[in-house]
Amino acid sequence: MSDLADLTARMRAFTDERDWGQFHDLKSLTLALTGEVGEVAELVQWLPDSAARTVSDERLRERLGEELADVLLYLVRLADVAGIDLADEAAKKLERNESRFPADGHRGVAPDRH
Amino acid sequence: MSDLADLTARMRAFTDERDWGQFHDLKSLTLALTGEVGEVAELVQWLPDSAARTVSDERLRERLGEELADVLLYLVRLADVAGIDLADEAAKKLERNESRFPADGHRGVAPDRH
Amino acid sequence: MSDLADLTARMRAFTDERDWGQFHDLKSLTLALTGEVGEVAELVQWLPDSAARTVSDERLRERLGEELADVLLYLVRLADVAGIDLADEAAKKLERNESRFPADGHRGVAPDRH
Amino acid sequence: MSDLADLTARMRAFTDERDWGQFHDLKSLTLALTGEVGEVAELVQWLPDSAARTVSDERLRERLGEELADVLLYLVRLADVAGIDLADEAAKKLERNESRFPADGHRGVAPDRH
Repeated sequence: MSDLADLTARMRAFTDERDWGQFHDLKSLTLALTGEVGEVAELVQWLPDSAARTVSDERLRERLGEELADVLLYLVRLADVAGIDLADEAAKKLERNESRFPADGHRGVAPDRH
Repeated sequence: MSDLADLTARMRAFTDERDWGQFHDLKSLTLALTGEVGEVAELVQWLPDSAARTVSDERLRERLGEELADVLLYLVRLADVAGIDLADEAAKKLERNESRFPADGHRGVAPDRH
Repeated sequence: MSDLADLTARMRAFTDERDWGQFHDLKSLTLALTGEVGEVAELVQWLPDSAARTVSDERLRERLGEELADVLLYLVRLADVAGIDLADEAAKKLERNESRFPADGHRGVAPDRH
Repeated sequence: MSDLADLTARMRAFTDERDWGQFHDLKSLTLALTGEVGEVAELVQWLPDSAARTVSDERLRERLGEELADVLLYLVRLADVAGIDLADEAAKKLERNESRFPADGHRGVAPDRH
């Protein structure tokens, strides 16, 4: 079984066993996702620029690993509640990005967002 | 190959082909993740409570699928840059949550965060 | 002095006295803002819908007050670093919203975001 | 009248005139705040480090001004719904920060968050 499908199934079982499905509407789960991304932000916010390309501090990597895991778990749960196949959507989005930003025209140029 | 490892490899190739690695430090990628979670929030923010447990509007599901995919792609990329095995961390975190919130003592009770 | 200008001046002095201006670039401050909004999200994420219109729990109001204050302080600091007059921008935005959403055509209808 | 109190009163009138109070529960407003912070993040995410201390691009400043205004307007509205005096809370928080981080012991040292 793929790892995203496996995590989805395990999160669903975890939720059902605790009768937590009642809390897992789209808005609450998006807030939970926001909370976890906020914890990632707190870990990296004051890193000096020069240190921000690798993680040499083992304690920081450990903390980041935990917070990124929390983001993934809520993301997987949110997709499951919304009836979305996350692996499939990500693969399709990557393909769209590959067409939208051809390597030749975008080499070394940050995508403009504004 | 597992789907998270596959997405990680494809995002790394996508980045390298465009020479975008220079933009992908921890802080910039966390900001990109924040931007994508913000787009998810905008999609669900005004949903009525009663509608917030399922997605019956096919257009909303499609939009949500795209935004959740964006969140996953940046998450996978951030973990890769930080040297974190996301699938492994998520599996470990789920196990810790299973011990931390035994089903018997937490059935139907939302975890207290404050 | 208006309260936003006063907070801006005090945050600038607070930062200067600690020589923290070196950390206060736009990206770091936006990450700090993200972290604080994440803490607000964690406080409200599991609230039942029926409880989510008022705050009767005095402890929750206190915690929310602290986190909303943190959001405001980083917001004010970010605007100052970016050379933005926040009070003026907010007043102009409110006026634009008043024209963009005339009361007569939008009564009781949530603004569509997707 | 202070500017935060003035914005609060105007946002309340704006909401009432459109009968939008029904959408303004704590969770929905926190999601709206998340969406706006996400838009700020999208504006700054790919800025080069060297450019991230000032805003010389007038178009970027304009866009940032609009998004920071949106953050403030939702923040003010959220505080109003929660029965929180935002100006008072921010002043108290700043005083607590002044005691918690005495200038002498924290000069030039980023606050540790992990």
